[in-house]
Amino acid sequence: MFSPQMAGYDRAITIFSPEGELYQVRYAGEAVKRGWATVGLKCSDGVVLAAEKRKLGPLIDLNSIEKVYMIDTHIGAASAGLLSDARILIDYAREQAQVYRLLYDEQADVEYITKRISDLEQAYTQHGGVRPFGIALIIGGVDKNGPRLYQTDPSGIYFGYYATALGSGSTLILEYLEKNYKYEMDINSCIKLTIKSLSLVAESLDADRFEIGVIDAKTKSFRKLTIDELSKLIEEAKNEGLPQRPSA
Amino acid sequence: MFSPQMAGYDRAITIFSPEGELYQVRYAGEAVKRGWATVGLKCSDGVVLAAEKRKLGPLIDLNSIEKVYMIDTHIGAASAGLLSDARILIDYAREQAQVYRLLYDEQADVEYITKRISDLEQAYTQHGGVRPFGIALIIGGVDKNGPRLYQTDPSGIYFGYYATALGSGSTLILEYLEKNYKYEMDINSCIKLTIKSLSLVAESLDADRFEIGVIDAKTKSFRKLTIDELSKLIEEAKNEGLPQRPSA
Amino acid sequence: MFSPQMAGYDRAITIFSPEGELYQVRYAGEAVKRGWATVGLKCSDGVVLAAEKRKLGPLIDLNSIEKVYMIDTHIGAASAGLLSDARILIDYAREQAQVYRLLYDEQADVEYITKRISDLEQAYTQHGGVRPFGIALIIGGVDKNGPRLYQTDPSGIYFGYYATALGSGSTLILEYLEKNYKYEMDINSCIKLTIKSLSLVAESLDADRFEIGVIDAKTKSFRKLTIDELSKLIEEAKNEGLPQRPSA
Amino acid sequence: MFSPQMAGYDRAITIFSPEGELYQVRYAGEAVKRGWATVGLKCSDGVVLAAEKRKLGPLIDLNSIEKVYMIDTHIGAASAGLLSDARILIDYAREQAQVYRLLYDEQADVEYITKRISDLEQAYTQHGGVRPFGIALIIGGVDKNGPRLYQTDPSGIYFGYYATALGSGSTLILEYLEKNYKYEMDINSCIKLTIKSLSLVAESLDADRFEIGVIDAKTKSFRKLTIDELSKLIEEAKNEGLPQRPSA
Amino acid sequence: MFSPQMAGYDRAITIFSPEGELYQVRYAGEAVKRGWATVGLKCSDGVVLAAEKRKLGPLIDLNSIEKVYMIDTHIGAASAGLLSDARILIDYAREQAQVYRLLYDEQADVEYITKRISDLEQAYTQHGGVRPFGIALIIGGVDKNGPRLYQTDPSGIYFGYYATALGSGSTLILEYLEKNYKYEMDINSCIKLTIKSLSLVAESLDADRFEIGVIDAKTKSFRKLTIDELSKLIEEAKNEGLPQRPSA
Amino acid sequence: MFSPQMAGYDRAITIFSPEGELYQVRYAGEAVKRGWATVGLKCSDGVVLAAEKRKLGPLIDLNSIEKVYMIDTHIGAASAGLLSDARILIDYAREQAQVYRLLYDEQADVEYITKRISDLEQAYTQHGGVRPFGIALIIGGVDKNGPRLYQTDPSGIYFGYYATALGSGSTLILEYLEKNYKYEMDINSCIKLTIKSLSLVAESLDADRFEIGVIDAKTKSFRKLTIDELSKLIEEAKNEGLPQRPSA
Amino acid sequence: MFSPQMAGYDRAITIFSPEGELYQVRYAGEAVKRGWATVGLKCSDGVVLAAEKRKLGPLIDLNSIEKVYMIDTHIGAASAGLLSDARILIDYAREQAQVYRLLYDEQADVEYITKRISDLEQAYTQHGGVRPFGIALIIGGVDKNGPRLYQTDPSGIYFGYYATALGSGSTLILEYLEKNYKYEMDINSCIKLTIKSLSLVAESLDADRFEIGVIDAKTKSFRKLTIDELSKLIEEAKNEGLPQRPSA
Repeated sequence: MFSPQMAGYDRAITIFSPEGELYQVRYAGEAVKRGWATVGLKCSDGVVLAAEKRKLGPLIDLNSIEKVYMIDTHIGAASAGLLSDARILIDYAREQAQVYRLLYDEQADVEYITKRISDLEQAYTQHGGVRPFGIALIIGGVDKNGPRLYQTDPSGIYFGYYATALGSGSTLILEYLEKNYKYEMDINSCIKLTIKSLSLVAESLDADRFEIGVIDAKTKSFRKLTIDELSKLIEEAKNEGLPQRPSA
Repeated sequence: MFSPQMAGYDRAITIFSPEGELYQVRYAGEAVKRGWATVGLKCSDGVVLAAEKRKLGPLIDLNSIEKVYMIDTHIGAASAGLLSDARILIDYAREQAQVYRLLYDEQADVEYITKRISDLEQAYTQHGGVRPFGIALIIGGVDKNGPRLYQTDPSGIYFGYYATALGSGSTLILEYLEKNYKYEMDINSCIKLTIKSLSLVAESLDADRFEIGVIDAKTKSFRKLTIDELSKLIEEAKNEGLPQRPSA
Repeated sequence: MFSPQMAGYDRAITIFSPEGELYQVRYAGEAVKRGWATVGLKCSDGVVLAAEKRKLGPLIDLNSIEKVYMIDTHIGAASAGLLSDARILIDYAREQAQVYRLLYDEQADVEYITKRISDLEQAYTQHGGVRPFGIALIIGGVDKNGPRLYQTDPSGIYFGYYATALGSGSTLILEYLEKNYKYEMDINSCIKLTIKSLSLVAESLDADRFEIGVIDAKTKSFRKLTIDELSKLIEEAKNEGLPQRPSA
Repeated sequence: MFSPQMAGYDRAITIFSPEGELYQVRYAGEAVKRGWATVGLKCSDGVVLAAEKRKLGPLIDLNSIEKVYMIDTHIGAASAGLLSDARILIDYAREQAQVYRLLYDEQADVEYITKRISDLEQAYTQHGGVRPFGIALIIGGVDKNGPRLYQTDPSGIYFGYYATALGSGSTLILEYLEKNYKYEMDINSCIKLTIKSLSLVAESLDADRFEIGVIDAKTKSFRKLTIDELSKLIEEAKNEGLPQRPSA
Repeated sequence: MFSPQMAGYDRAITIFSPEGELYQVRYAGEAVKRGWATVGLKCSDGVVLAAEKRKLGPLIDLNSIEKVYMIDTHIGAASAGLLSDARILIDYAREQAQVYRLLYDEQADVEYITKRISDLEQAYTQHGGVRPFGIALIIGGVDKNGPRLYQTDPSGIYFGYYATALGSGSTLILEYLEKNYKYEMDINSCIKLTIKSLSLVAESLDADRFEIGVIDAKTKSFRKLTIDELSKLIEEAKNEGLPQRPSA
Repeated sequence: MFSPQMAGYDRAITIFSPEGELYQVRYAGEAVKRGWATVGLKCSDGVVLAAEKRKLGPLIDLNSIEKVYMIDTHIGAASAGLLSDARILIDYAREQAQVYRLLYDEQADVEYITKRISDLEQAYTQHGGVRPFGIALIIGGVDKNGPRLYQTDPSGIYFGYYATALGSGSTLILEYLEKNYKYEMDINSCIKLTIKSLSLVAESLDADRFEIGVIDAKTKSFRKLTIDELSKLIEEAKNEGLPQRPSA
Repeated sequence: MFSPQMAGYDRAITIFSPEGELYQVRYAGEAVKRGWATVGLKCSDGVVLAAEKRKLGPLIDLNSIEKVYMIDTHIGAASAGLLSDARILIDYAREQAQVYRLLYDEQADVEYITKRISDLEQAYTQHGGVRPFGIALIIGGVDKNGPRLYQTDPSGIYFGYYATALGSGSTLILEYLEKNYKYEMDINSCIKLTIKSLSLVAESLDADRFEIGVIDAKTKSFRKLTIDELSKLIEEAKNEGLPQRPSA
């Protein structure tokens, strides 16, 4: 029998392979794997979303690169994959959050927003003439059910997570999180755990190379850490001891 | 003569093979076979819908994974296959159930809802530019005709069942059910039979690894078992004796 | 010269082969040939529509499998081929029958309904982006012209019949009918002839393995035989002598 | 250079071959050639349309097979080719005839109806995503210009004829007609000539194997001959002497 | 390098070959070359449009074949190529002429009508999913600028002509016209010149084998010559001496 | 690596080659190169647009061939390439000029019209299902900024020019213009320069073989030179000395 | 495994390669690389946008070539790639800026405009039947946040920059900018740095071969430098010393 590549089962989103696989969706997942490291953690008192920023060149304004986004005052997201695809999904999520407020006069649940994004992603895996979104999102927030953390992928599947990671090096980060994450951690401990886990793969530990968003369960408000806050927490994380990077 | 693969009869939903086969529909069925084990049983006094939950990783919130869904207060469903496709069909079913209530001021029959889902599935097997749904659903409920259990597949065909199973290991489960299922069983016995049959293929017998929905003929209300209920019933099932798992 | 398969004349409904053949329509006919045996007879005082039901498994509810359908109070149909395609055509026929009643305040003729179904089937053989219906229908009923029996196929062609059969084993059944069918037979004799002919290919002679619909010329009403009626008539047919099944 | 088949010039209606040929239209013509023999004659006092009916099986109701159709009270047609395609064109013609009556409060000319059919056929030879109609029609009638006879083919071309034949055996029939047709023949002579010419290829000379429609110039009314009329005229034709069938 | 045929530059109207050629348009021109001989002449006092009619068989009514058409009272056209395509363009032209009258309350110029036809032809050479028209038209008439003669082809290009010819044998006819046409010829001389030129390729010189339309500058009225007129003019042409046909 | 032709990068307007080339646009440019020679000059007191007319045959009315067009009273254009494509663009330009007048009650600038044409051309290079326009235009006129001359090509790019040439022989003409064109030349000198440059490639120097349009900066009015004017200016150009034609 | 070229992963925008790459987007980037050198700098008191103009011929009006565009009074852009694609995006940006003013009665931020352009570019990378824009833009301006500089590419990704360069020779220019650009430079120093960097690849240092736009933070107004200003600044840059061009 032919390989899927030879047989052409991987040339369109509307074609199943004989094993029931959608190869174009799988390939879109490869674009995610090549993205920069991204981490999300559910804490006892909120949610932490973080991403590494790679230095694309000395003349790029790192502040202009966004990998952690506010979706609504109480919901944020972090992405890995094709940045322009991410922007489209984030805009869609923001719009859905506003429409929800208009219709029901209250904030949308985190899962509701996750589901709307995922439904759009699914549609791009079943109808011809398009390609799937080359993006995965970690979506976190605090709603009436408390802190919530979800991850969605190009197929439109989503699950809830305690902690998760995407992008290049995510296997290493996940291993570290599985060993060190604890359900009762508070936001501060989570941020430091995030920094430690990212330090396993990050190009640098400079504060401007991290982007961290936090949603506090009390205020239900998304905000990004300042450079000063980041510097201080990186220092604290260093003092607590960073994990050893694997030798190449 | 060419094999269907070589001749390309399996590259589009709009192409019959010389034997009158729709290969893309068959391939969609492979996605179902690779799904997690799912079981449905019609009891003398209601319907039981159950699914195993696989542990995708220690940091995934098992509660966020849904394989058994409420469609209306009196109807539920369990799925095997592409989870994002399932979500689309479940949403469609919920919508149809609500529309029916609005139009006729009464609850839709279980078969009516099954038929609406199946008709949508059929449409995706006859028109180009799409792929079939990679999903099979077990749909159960209690309506004016008493307990009802149906199963639908990617081709849009559906049948009524006394007991049925989908996903990986379903052959083993079906064999067991054929020997042990009895028409006069009540809900409690059915749940235990379900647990026993799933134990043949389940990764673990922990209560949080099962999702069981029940529709009671008296209340006509779908509800999911709590962890406590599940733990107790698993214990009872163990006491009654679990079937021996086949050696690998 | 190439074979049609090699030359690709059989890859789309919009392509004639050099001999003026529509191969996709022919292939759809193969799906019909693989269907379960189905029989229709015109009687002096009505019409009989019958189908064998195969046992797909011990846990399937045979009552949920429908191969003989009521289209309107005076018209029924029996199908062979892709069951989900059949459902779409039967629904379309029912709708057309209701529309006709609304517009003209009388029952549609059997041929009118047959024609509407066939026109839809034809459309699916002439326009790209779809596949033909993988189904053939025997349509019978009693209208102002008396008992009427038609058969339509995936190409959208239909003819009137005295007696006809579809699906696997239909060649054997037709041979038997050609020898034993008589124009003046009444409904009761026709049912028994139907049972005898189906006995040539049926898996079992149990009453629940047959589905028989009857339209009586006097009442002009379609109804399905009950299990009791079926049991009695099967017994009578046996007493009259069943045809010998061909040895394999 | 490639043959048209190898080069793929015959795979779509929107592709001319290097010689300016539309192969899909030519192939549609092959479906016509394989149709049953069909004849049309213009008489001094009307038009005769006739077709042979082949016996598809002993249980088919020959009366249900229509190859000669009434389009309006003063126009009829006979077809060769794909029967379901013919039905679509005939329905279209009937509709056009009714619309004409509504708009202009008079009967449409025979050529007007022929032109409407042909224009539809042409459209199916110039736009992608469809196939040509696999049908040719002989259209006859009596209008204010007297008796009129036309023939249209899958390309949408039509001509007027004194006498014409379509389908398998039409070459033989045309040769016979060219020798024996005379402009001044009346309807009765024409019917007998039709019977004689069809006898060259017909399976049988039984009256129910012929379908003959006549439009009388005086009444301007289409009607089909009864079995009795047919029997009598076949007898007369036999007495006058039938042409010798070519030995195989 | 590949030949255009091998490289597939000739499979769709939307593909230029590396030399900037539209092969499908060129192939449509081949359909024109195979058409019957057609001639148009501008005279000092009007326009002559003529075509040969080939005898497709002894039973075809030559009068039903139209190759010279009236478009408006003051404009006519003659065609070579696919007859059904011609009909569509002629109908379009007639419609445009009527619309012009409605909008501006005067007759359209000959060039205006030519341009509308040509624009439609061009559209069929630039958009996918269609094929070009397989037809060329000679369009003549008399408007406020006096006699006018144009020729349009499948590409949608048109030019004005003093005299022109299309179809099989047109090279021979054009050579003859170039030598014998004179600007100051009147309609009568032009008709005879037309007959002489067509005699070079015509199957027969019988009057019913020619179709000649004339638009007189004085009356600005299109009319077709009667058989009697044709017979007389053929006789006159013969008396003046017909050109010698080339030996095969 | 494959050549673009082998790899199929040149089969559709929606496909970039690995070097970022749109081959279908390049091929459309070949149609332009094969057009007849066309020249445009910006003068101190206006603009000159000129084209050679090739003799397609002795019976074609040269006056009916238009290569220099009026777009609005103050703007003209000259084309090289597919004549029917040119007509579509010229009509579009005229329409845009009229719409501009309606909306703003003043004449459109020459660049505005050039831009509208070019935008349409660009659209035909980015969307599937069409082919690019096989045409280049020289657009000239006088607006509030004085004399203006632009050239647009199939890609939809346009530039301003002092002098430019298109079509077969344009390389030769451009070389001559580069040596002899001077910014301060008046219209009369420009026309003679145009004639001299075209004489390098023209089939003949007869006045009816040139088409020259002029827009005078004072009157801001486009007009075409008469045969008499052309004859006189050709004579003057000859007296001043024509450039030597390159030997073949 | 096949190369992407052989396997056809690079033939459509809707196909991911197995590595998650969109080859058609990458190829569009090649068109950008072949564009003329373009530079953008953020200064302490404004933004500088610059481009080299290549001499396409002596008769082209260099003033008509635009590579630096005003989008709104406070925003400009410079492009590299397909000029006609650039025009479409610039027009779109201008329209969006006007719409923003209309809706919100204030000037749009530079990033808002950048995002609208990038969203359009993204859409052309995800839907079939189109090709990506073969263009990259440097967008600069001054808004309420001070000077802003962005760059967007065919994928629809954009980043903020201190200094950036596009087109042929951009690698060389970027290296030079990385060494010599300083955040605190004022507009005048930036212009000279721009000239120096472009001098590394420019065909000539004539003032008319540069196009430089400046947005001053005080006036928030985009304007292009005059030839005189350019001449003076080129002279100053020369006096300060131009970088040495690499030997070929």
